[in-house]
Amino acid sequence: MNIRSYQEDDAAAVWGILEPVIRAGETYTLDRDLTREQALAYWLAHEVWVAELDGVVAGTYYLKRNQAGGGSHVCNCGYMTSAAFQGRGLAREMCRHSMQRAREQGFRAMQFNFVVTSNQGAVHLWLKLGFREVGRLPGAFLHPSLGYQDALVMFRELERHG
Amino acid sequence: MNIRSYQEDDAAAVWGILEPVIRAGETYTLDRDLTREQALAYWLAHEVWVAELDGVVAGTYYLKRNQAGGGSHVCNCGYMTSAAFQGRGLAREMCRHSMQRAREQGFRAMQFNFVVTSNQGAVHLWLKLGFREVGRLPGAFLHPSLGYQDALVMFRELERHG
Repeated sequence: MNIRSYQEDDAAAVWGILEPVIRAGETYTLDRDLTREQALAYWLAHEVWVAELDGVVAGTYYLKRNQAGGGSHVCNCGYMTSAAFQGRGLAREMCRHSMQRAREQGFRAMQFNFVVTSNQGAVHLWLKLGFREVGRLPGAFLHPSLGYQDALVMFRELERHG
Repeated sequence: MNIRSYQEDDAAAVWGILEPVIRAGETYTLDRDLTREQALAYWLAHEVWVAELDGVVAGTYYLKRNQAGGGSHVCNCGYMTSAAFQGRGLAREMCRHSMQRAREQGFRAMQFNFVVTSNQGAVHLWLKLGFREVGRLPGAFLHPSLGYQDALVMFRELERHG
């Protein structure tokens, strides 16, 4: 697996990853009818990385500060993986990579603001990677088929030498 | 107290309320050096109301959905009160007003994403108004004089009949 900075050439591949996730509306709090332009504007507003597997862009993540001002020492990331490459550890590797990047930039912690509880794979992965549940938003996500789901706020300090 | 929709004429008064709060950096996760233009662009990106006391704009709040997509049924508000008018119930009345507005717009709940624990007046007021702590973000706010503070995520369902 090769994780590298996003380049302009990657736009089509990244949109190819984002589109099905956005259209499904099961995990991200993004409007399901976002256009390609809107979705890319959202994703690319921050530092963005792509993960290649077999020479193909198979995953992408962004890294940004989660809040401004007095909250600037806590970062936030979003990760998306191509359905065709699921189960091959992409999310785990991208998350590890993002934690290292975040440390390099001086962030002290990482926060996920909205992990839908029905997205059990994500919840378990983040727990395994050292995140903990620091909040639970009751019924805060309307899943297209499962109805109202809780969402978790997950948090992890970033030790300085890991 | 009169709470009414923001109008273009109110820009100077609203900036007069926002500026000291932003410069102090003790409660909102906004960069302390925001310009008037940036601050007003941020505040006015959403539905905005002002509260008048003695014929003067003494407080303001915004109302917006807290997340898009499957999170669109939960709203978020931010309130600011002029220092000269503190202790006169402005925040309480603006919050009550915002809950009614939110109900009218079909929101099912209201969430505050980041209530700094050192802002005890706010924490107590939100608890009195029916919000509860659903999350605690450890050390997520660097207060200019008090150092790292926890921040609370607070949540309140909005019953439909007021």
